[in-house]
Amino acid sequence: MGRYYSGDIFKKTLLDVEKEVFVEKWSISSDDLGMREGGWMIEKRRLYGGLSDHVDIVEVNNGSLSFILVPTRGMGVWKGSFKGYYLGWNSPVKTPVHPSLINLESRGGLGWLDGFNEWIVRCGLSSLGAPGMDVITDNMGRGREIKLTLHGKIANIPAERLEVTVGLNEPYEIRVEGVVYERSMFGSNLKLYSSAITYPNSNILRIIDSVENLKSIDDEMQLLYHCNFGPPFLGDGSTLLAPVELVAPRDSIAADGIEEFNMFGPPKPGFIEQVYFLKLRGDSDGRTSVMLLNSDETLAVSLSFSLNELPYFTLWKNTGSLEDGYVVGLEPGTSLPNNKAFERERGRIILLRPSEKYQSSIDVSIHVGREEVDRMKRRIEGLGAESKMKVLTEPSEEFSPSYKRKHHIRLSS
Amino acid sequence: MGRYYSGDIFKKTLLDVEKEVFVEKWSISSDDLGMREGGWMIEKRRLYGGLSDHVDIVEVNNGSLSFILVPTRGMGVWKGSFKGYYLGWNSPVKTPVHPSLINLESRGGLGWLDGFNEWIVRCGLSSLGAPGMDVITDNMGRGREIKLTLHGKIANIPAERLEVTVGLNEPYEIRVEGVVYERSMFGSNLKLYSSAITYPNSNILRIIDSVENLKSIDDEMQLLYHCNFGPPFLGDGSTLLAPVELVAPRDSIAADGIEEFNMFGPPKPGFIEQVYFLKLRGDSDGRTSVMLLNSDETLAVSLSFSLNELPYFTLWKNTGSLEDGYVVGLEPGTSLPNNKAFERERGRIILLRPSEKYQSSIDVSIHVGREEVDRMKRRIEGLGAESKMKVLTEPSEEFSPSYKRKHHIRLSS
Amino acid sequence: MGRYYSGDIFKKTLLDVEKEVFVEKWSISSDDLGMREGGWMIEKRRLYGGLSDHVDIVEVNNGSLSFILVPTRGMGVWKGSFKGYYLGWNSPVKTPVHPSLINLESRGGLGWLDGFNEWIVRCGLSSLGAPGMDVITDNMGRGREIKLTLHGKIANIPAERLEVTVGLNEPYEIRVEGVVYERSMFGSNLKLYSSAITYPNSNILRIIDSVENLKSIDDEMQLLYHCNFGPPFLGDGSTLLAPVELVAPRDSIAADGIEEFNMFGPPKPGFIEQVYFLKLRGDSDGRTSVMLLNSDETLAVSLSFSLNELPYFTLWKNTGSLEDGYVVGLEPGTSLPNNKAFERERGRIILLRPSEKYQSSIDVSIHVGREEVDRMKRRIEGLGAESKMKVLTEPSEEFSPSYKRKHHIRLSS
Repeated sequence: MGRYYSGDIFKKTLLDVEKEVFVEKWSISSDDLGMREGGWMIEKRRLYGGLSDHVDIVEVNNGSLSFILVPTRGMGVWKGSFKGYYLGWNSPVKTPVHPSLINLESRGGLGWLDGFNEWIVRCGLSSLGAPGMDVITDNMGRGREIKLTLHGKIANIPAERLEVTVGLNEPYEIRVEGVVYERSMFGSNLKLYSSAITYPNSNILRIIDSVENLKSIDDEMQLLYHCNFGPPFLGDGSTLLAPVELVAPRDSIAADGIEEFNMFGPPKPGFIEQVYFLKLRGDSDGRTSVMLLNSDETLAVSLSFSLNELPYFTLWKNTGSLEDGYVVGLEPGTSLPNNKAFERERGRIILLRPSEKYQSSIDVSIHVGREEVDRMKRRIEGLGAESKMKVLTEPSEEFSPSYKRKHHIRLSS
Repeated sequence: MGRYYSGDIFKKTLLDVEKEVFVEKWSISSDDLGMREGGWMIEKRRLYGGLSDHVDIVEVNNGSLSFILVPTRGMGVWKGSFKGYYLGWNSPVKTPVHPSLINLESRGGLGWLDGFNEWIVRCGLSSLGAPGMDVITDNMGRGREIKLTLHGKIANIPAERLEVTVGLNEPYEIRVEGVVYERSMFGSNLKLYSSAITYPNSNILRIIDSVENLKSIDDEMQLLYHCNFGPPFLGDGSTLLAPVELVAPRDSIAADGIEEFNMFGPPKPGFIEQVYFLKLRGDSDGRTSVMLLNSDETLAVSLSFSLNELPYFTLWKNTGSLEDGYVVGLEPGTSLPNNKAFERERGRIILLRPSEKYQSSIDVSIHVGREEVDRMKRRIEGLGAESKMKVLTEPSEEFSPSYKRKHHIRLSS
Repeated sequence: MGRYYSGDIFKKTLLDVEKEVFVEKWSISSDDLGMREGGWMIEKRRLYGGLSDHVDIVEVNNGSLSFILVPTRGMGVWKGSFKGYYLGWNSPVKTPVHPSLINLESRGGLGWLDGFNEWIVRCGLSSLGAPGMDVITDNMGRGREIKLTLHGKIANIPAERLEVTVGLNEPYEIRVEGVVYERSMFGSNLKLYSSAITYPNSNILRIIDSVENLKSIDDEMQLLYHCNFGPPFLGDGSTLLAPVELVAPRDSIAADGIEEFNMFGPPKPGFIEQVYFLKLRGDSDGRTSVMLLNSDETLAVSLSFSLNELPYFTLWKNTGSLEDGYVVGLEPGTSLPNNKAFERERGRIILLRPSEKYQSSIDVSIHVGREEVDRMKRRIEGLGAESKMKVLTEPSEEFSPSYKRKHHIRLSS
């Protein structure tokens, strides 16, 4: 197996379409490499049958934390588990759906929902958010009004390259890298270079992405991490702890629940989603964290990221029935998930120069036991979670296409 | 092979996506099981290349009757044959088309026709019938007007589970079961549990379906069995025998042929389809039968079903040229195949409570020789096929979106 | 291997969906057949992973000229090379995209561009050209207005049959035949019978197509060969030599460059495509040729075809940046690539009677060295390339939907 080693790194290419490299089934473990820091394994396999036919998945188990990456679905993270605690949610859609069976245009642009079941799924890259009309420049150099579909394309584009590396020295980094292109003739040409990283027996999944504009002219880009949690992290009495500077309801339904925007109830059949737009505080470097805690604060999951990279945060509160998807979404992004035209007007679209890359990363950590939860809680409180926050009680012109009248501002703590 | 047996039943799981079970190629025969009632076989295989690439099929031959199920296309029945008589029709589309190559939205919502070649295909489950606008509730709890596409999605959804069972005692039931989900986040979540059943050397294919609403709230459902016949059952002089209480033309073209609605002519290039809506009589339990007979009444195929389950019957008369699809469709359904909004207004949409199941079944039987045809004929006459029927000579407000003026009612026998 | 031989021809069927013949991987070479005219090989294989998952390709190398056919994409020609000179262009889309991952309806009907990277790709068969509304006859015999998508479907339909033949005597013809159907119930039923032909160590790729109307009634048909070239044939100072009788700009952007319509500049980021419609002169049999020459006329590629078969010629000048697709398209067709409704009004749509076939063919030849280039240059000059041509300086009513006012005619040489 010496041929796989490069210096202090074990490396295996599982997919490279241009070079016609494709490995259907493969696995490796700490035992295979004779490593002291043991108990981890990585397995790549292809699913067969149903809507998952030919979906490639990569299962990583670091000994404590496991997660399943889906190269065929834009390097999303299907689900995971940490010491027996399920990470993800229970969508009506049970297994990963092959993009060839998704029609993003269907249901008036909501076709994305037919395959939506990921723990962590990227929205973007050319556009994201609610379906809506937008004007693109076509091959003839003319404006052409088209309907953008929900949350863009990246979650339904198969990766073109896939590679596994394992550090042979401390901290024995386990890394799965994938390259996904959102590209077309006379369209965007955005390269997502994505890494999912963990360490043996750690409680962390780190995602590091870079999006590069391969065009020779400037182009727009959006990226949002739709991180979704059901039980056991979400339950009656679960809360979101975050250093909120401002919170705004997306629409009147969200406005109705603004008082308890960060508190979650039990599954409720027929619950209509409530969406809140948050401005977060960070430390002097712009780093911030948010945390979803269960009711007795003995179990939590946190997201840490930089507000310089991901300045906008959306909370998706969808505590419907278990059957219909009881879930809360924590969504750091380059913008809010309104339709792109609205976000552009508000100046929240990234413009990339030729060859320019946009870097972003998220640390997802799991905290088990009151002590560990407390430790993270204090860190987030230190970022200003206890300070006063602005609460917009109605949809505002700045954040929401469905604003109607002057909104009221109120201070709260 | 003992592990496959459960009591008096042989059982084999060929597909279970959630459990990552997938059997690409498999077969079994009466010889393999050392059975006295011999001559039957079942074969599962996957097609490759062209538009059929990766379509799974299950071929059942009971010794006299054979048919091919298509799990990849919603458990439809591609074609069959009975003692050498072809069952099905000759669509311009020759082999089963993989759903990933069908765009239901194309051609203004007629994309379903790009894969339409089945002997028996289900229309439904969330909607069926002609394309048309309808209002759905979206994730935001708001009404959203979308275009429903022809005949819904179920025929283009791959099955998630597939199982074969064979009874080891009389009557040695041969059964292929498939589970297909029509589900999406913020959409329907309907589970079709479908069984295709036959018996060694019998002349019957029995389809038993159950559609369950897996949502936690009420949801709508529609189901229609589009059973299609070409030669030798259809030919110049073939007729439909049915206990008709009322017949109504769908449109003016159908109205023009109302006098001979149940008589079929030779292939005619450029023939425009004529569609008739029928109310059938049944026995005291609501059971009814219809039969398609060839011109000299020596060969026929009958459908038997319950009007309690499938109260509406549509006759699709499409005696175009052999090249373009010379075919007659016999279509028992929970509604007529008008667009859903129209059917809803007329109260013909099924509403399922959470976990509620809708059961329906159809027996398809083949009758060879004047004697056997006569026997079935007398049964259908006994249901009132000779009694007076209402004939609507123009499209009516009750049955057809294309009604224009007051329709005339006439009694006929 | 004797079973493959039929008379003086070696024959191998690689795909026949109806007969369930599918060969995943196969190759043959002059050595395998023990042939004197050596150095050629043919290889069929299937790609895996990414957007190319399950795309079948056939690579032909005649010893000097190689090219890759893509049965899964309507028998298009992905790319080629002649003695080291690259044939094709460098699209942002790098490898062949499986049709199941293309949604022709997306981006307002421009979805075709998501898979566009071929050297030679057919546009058609039921329609081609710019997206636009058109009226089709639906199953009910009624006019239905639908949106035709860019360049039609044929490039995104997998072949149903694929066969390789090799002549065992001079000139040792190497031939790859594919059959692609563009067909649907209540839709077109057009059969493309396509052959790609070459000879050991020759400089020619000959494409011979026949399109047959399998319907029992008349039907429309369109076909255009979109032949695309980047470096080294295209470069700053490259020119198109053609026996032009008339040239018309498609739009005002093309009109601005009409003086240099046949001269090509260096890659230019943000360049907006210029499209010119040409009427060509031919010999007494209607044969004509056009040639793309590099700046010092030492390297060229020519297309030769019959104006009786392909009367309209379009030049697509898209000298954008190398990253965005620096390319020139030479496009002989049965019509211009305007939307179908416009072309129909101008009488440029082919109407095929039942069983009627439309034959067309193109010879693509590569010319290396000044001498060979000169020889071909003289042939084209002999066709009238030096004669006067009509130059329309503005979009005209006859050729372009974007005409605005009376156009001016000017004679030029």
